[in-house]
Amino acid sequence: MFQTFESSTSPEQGPPRLAALRAKMAEVGVNGFIVPRADAWQGEYVAPCDERLAWLTGFTGSAGYCIVLADKAGVFVDGRYRVQVKEQVSTDVFTPVDWPEVSLSAWLAEHGSGKVAYDPWLHSPKQIEALAASGLELVATENLVDAIWEDRPARPEGRVFAHPVELAGEASADKAARLGKVLAEAGESAAILTLPDSICWLLNIRGSDIPRIPIVQSLAILRADGRVDLFVEADKVVDLIFGTGVSIHPPEAFIFVVAGLEGRVRLDPASCPLAVVEALTATVSHGADPCVLPKATKNEVELQGARAAHARDAVAMVEFLAWLDEQKPEDVTEISAAQALEGFRRATNALQDISFETISSAGAHGAVVHYRVTEETNRSLKSGELYLVDSGGQYVDGTTDITRTVALGEPPSDAKAAFTRVLQGMIALSRIRFPKGVAGSHIDTLARAPLWMAGQDYDHGTGHGVGSYLSVHEGPARISRVSDLPLEPGMILSNEPGYYKEGAFGIRIENLIVVEEAQPLPGGDARDFMSFETLTYVPIDRRLIVPGMLSREERAWIDAYHMECVRRLEGQISPRAEAWIGQATLSL
Amino acid sequence: MFQTFESSTSPEQGPPRLAALRAKMAEVGVNGFIVPRADAWQGEYVAPCDERLAWLTGFTGSAGYCIVLADKAGVFVDGRYRVQVKEQVSTDVFTPVDWPEVSLSAWLAEHGSGKVAYDPWLHSPKQIEALAASGLELVATENLVDAIWEDRPARPEGRVFAHPVELAGEASADKAARLGKVLAEAGESAAILTLPDSICWLLNIRGSDIPRIPIVQSLAILRADGRVDLFVEADKVVDLIFGTGVSIHPPEAFIFVVAGLEGRVRLDPASCPLAVVEALTATVSHGADPCVLPKATKNEVELQGARAAHARDAVAMVEFLAWLDEQKPEDVTEISAAQALEGFRRATNALQDISFETISSAGAHGAVVHYRVTEETNRSLKSGELYLVDSGGQYVDGTTDITRTVALGEPPSDAKAAFTRVLQGMIALSRIRFPKGVAGSHIDTLARAPLWMAGQDYDHGTGHGVGSYLSVHEGPARISRVSDLPLEPGMILSNEPGYYKEGAFGIRIENLIVVEEAQPLPGGDARDFMSFETLTYVPIDRRLIVPGMLSREERAWIDAYHMECVRRLEGQISPRAEAWIGQATLSL
Repeated sequence: MFQTFESSTSPEQGPPRLAALRAKMAEVGVNGFIVPRADAWQGEYVAPCDERLAWLTGFTGSAGYCIVLADKAGVFVDGRYRVQVKEQVSTDVFTPVDWPEVSLSAWLAEHGSGKVAYDPWLHSPKQIEALAASGLELVATENLVDAIWEDRPARPEGRVFAHPVELAGEASADKAARLGKVLAEAGESAAILTLPDSICWLLNIRGSDIPRIPIVQSLAILRADGRVDLFVEADKVVDLIFGTGVSIHPPEAFIFVVAGLEGRVRLDPASCPLAVVEALTATVSHGADPCVLPKATKNEVELQGARAAHARDAVAMVEFLAWLDEQKPEDVTEISAAQALEGFRRATNALQDISFETISSAGAHGAVVHYRVTEETNRSLKSGELYLVDSGGQYVDGTTDITRTVALGEPPSDAKAAFTRVLQGMIALSRIRFPKGVAGSHIDTLARAPLWMAGQDYDHGTGHGVGSYLSVHEGPARISRVSDLPLEPGMILSNEPGYYKEGAFGIRIENLIVVEEAQPLPGGDARDFMSFETLTYVPIDRRLIVPGMLSREERAWIDAYHMECVRRLEGQISPRAEAWIGQATLSL
Repeated sequence: MFQTFESSTSPEQGPPRLAALRAKMAEVGVNGFIVPRADAWQGEYVAPCDERLAWLTGFTGSAGYCIVLADKAGVFVDGRYRVQVKEQVSTDVFTPVDWPEVSLSAWLAEHGSGKVAYDPWLHSPKQIEALAASGLELVATENLVDAIWEDRPARPEGRVFAHPVELAGEASADKAARLGKVLAEAGESAAILTLPDSICWLLNIRGSDIPRIPIVQSLAILRADGRVDLFVEADKVVDLIFGTGVSIHPPEAFIFVVAGLEGRVRLDPASCPLAVVEALTATVSHGADPCVLPKATKNEVELQGARAAHARDAVAMVEFLAWLDEQKPEDVTEISAAQALEGFRRATNALQDISFETISSAGAHGAVVHYRVTEETNRSLKSGELYLVDSGGQYVDGTTDITRTVALGEPPSDAKAAFTRVLQGMIALSRIRFPKGVAGSHIDTLARAPLWMAGQDYDHGTGHGVGSYLSVHEGPARISRVSDLPLEPGMILSNEPGYYKEGAFGIRIENLIVVEEAQPLPGGDARDFMSFETLTYVPIDRRLIVPGMLSREERAWIDAYHMECVRRLEGQISPRAEAWIGQATLSL
């Protein structure tokens, strides 16, 4: 079982560790130290040895900071974690701070003084620039948490394995040559790569350093001539054969090689560690990591992989939904449901990992958008309520992410009305055609308009990018009010509007979709249009749909979608699931 | 009659004027001179004495530049004017340039050399900064066109008149005190105001310096203590009594007063003339003109005025549409129709001016989005075609802007289908409710989605801000893909999707709408929603609607809209119009 359900809260360990850190601060002569949740790779998951924030404070959220001063320690958490932080940290010594409403620099300006230290490997230049607004003296030091952390887990030594061209669709050497040319055209000699999924994509490798995301913790330099220097522990890659353009170096060599770079060197000031920037003697050229956009626009081989992974994952989902409908809700808990689902995914014999911690939430828990069930919070499902399950799998040919909301018994009528509106938004995005140049911020509204007309909305984006056997949350494109990057063919995005009624229920319907070039229509303009291909084919609970609220086109979409689910799953599923899907896909 | 229809093209005058300018350039020792269409106030209309671009080149478009070099003269025009420029300038000596695809600086870098001169009163710092990318030496000089322009018209001496608080809704002294406080809170001592509609709004004055927009060509300084210095010819304001906080100075004094300012002085680097910026010795604080946002968010008195102006204007529009339907299309020309419409507006006895040149376009002319009919292009209307009329009035209580597209005889079926889609987009925007924080870029898509689904789109924004007896195109809010300023209650915007089939027809339907706080709905969230109040009530040609394409809600909207037209116009219109409106508003 990949997922575990223990709660890792141990508030009582915070105070002695905090005291030790303060002693260390006094020893090196600084008045403060900043502990981010992030590691040097700025990703969503970190290795146990990099869980500094959790080790120090007890807070296990996926984003946040602690600023430790001599007489105060602020724990900065965003809206998702305002309740959780109070349960996880000892509030005698730690003060939760509402972030980003209160910025780190504003808090520092109010409470800090003198020298405040930070580990330059854990902060980008942009972050330190923002902190400088505090007016305090910021000094780079060794990591003071690491200095006091006894029994610190070892750095991960996960095996690195090839992601073959049959899955990647483009040889690593071809990717490197193509992007090297981009650098050369921009007058740049090299680009520094510190995002692990960029490096994995570029070199067609995957790893097992951290859970949920098959990345390799490493660093790299891409040269304008297409050569790549990879900095990674030799033991991890001993089984691999790289092309002649790739040189392997120990991680310790990275900073020296960076220091020796010449010409104009591209780096992304939003993600590159400050320690790396400061080691550079060459001219700095601020720019996006050159891998990010090509990685997001999947090639035809990657899309074929995604289709296969989704077909496989749909079998597991349908088996799960069929199983769930057979149970008495009261016999199932949030944890046992998540375990059953993981079991069905494992039964595909292709599951490498789940792609994130399954959100398995009954009733009012569904309204907690990032709910993670633990032994403490676990509860039984209940007839008359909704059950929301958001989950995904990592397969070598693709990463999946799907949310379904299920009626248990007869759900409340306001839940059915809201579900129907959420569905209308999901359908509107699925059906839309749009011209070149349109970004996620322009179409986000289509998913919300049916809710808006009823005075309702949801407080999260509508969609995120998804990697190819990489991060389930992948930049740079999103479907959200703030994403102005034009959508391009090949981008895989989630389409997941929702609605949450605090204390009552949560609703979310999520499919993955791919941007594709649209076929011209008779009578249409001579301009390029794009549309979405749907990847996820798993029935949507028709017991929650109010057919009278749907337009003719929306009903037709649902019926066609369900027919396609049946067609795609035919012969792939158990007799139980066959019987279930027949009922689940009846015409509205 | 306000509108004239002569074509002011005189390409033959360009070459001798260009030669004279080049002689002047040689005399002062520069290799180039930049002639923008803009005057110092950066508005849409300019006074005859500021029509330097038209005088020099013959090009009369509302935006553009000419860069004159010793051996080449580029005339930079945008997509609207690519055809027109070739008819208006002598292409023997002037080279039309596709702008902004080709930037001024890129063209200068390719063709220019040495010193290039400009008039620092006609360019903002941002514009000169962009030009500096050419790598050439840019030098500020006197205006070399003015130096050779014999018989140059005099500066306008339009009377300035009060815009009473009964129309403005807020005393000038209160506005100045309120905005002065904003400056004080930002640590600024003063703001430099160079946008005439900001000054008119702040001081509750209007003028008659240029056609179509009742602004006063003037300059001003707002102090943090609420005092205002107004720089304007004394003769223009001799009849006016200003409050004690306002000091009047001659325009020549402006630059000296600016030079004497102390503290931090706010100016907008996108619109403030460079000459003003360079005269400052105080610290520059870059920021938006503080009047722009308050001016855009109309108060309740201004909104009452807008409603009254629209009710009055609707009478004229309905009389016009009723008259038009009585004519044989072939007996009416684009010009005679525009004249008839202006006649109906004048008959209200309240028309101060038209708010822009009426777009009166038959058949294929309708597809030329910014078509302006002249004696040369004028043609008769024709049965079986569409007629598009986009027009507006300036009334002391409000500015109007309305577009209607009319069927002449039986229109082509593709035109009816496209009209219905345009209407669906217009209705979607009219009906939408949206939460706080949503900007024009987020809802623009709602107006386009019905067209997109048919592979169609239009190449202009969906809506622009509209002033209160001021500019018909007013910033800062817009409904367009690039406008990320959150919408706020009181903003008046146009809602004008369209569709254009080159060589065949043009369709646009335009109402003005106001952002308002929405009433909470039962079952809705505890969050602030906004919606739009419609200002324009003039029937939409139901002969162009395909009812089968509309949803139940869309049909209901149209029928309710038409009933409201009848209700509002009852007793206000002629028997002819009464008879017409009965037919025009029959239930779909």
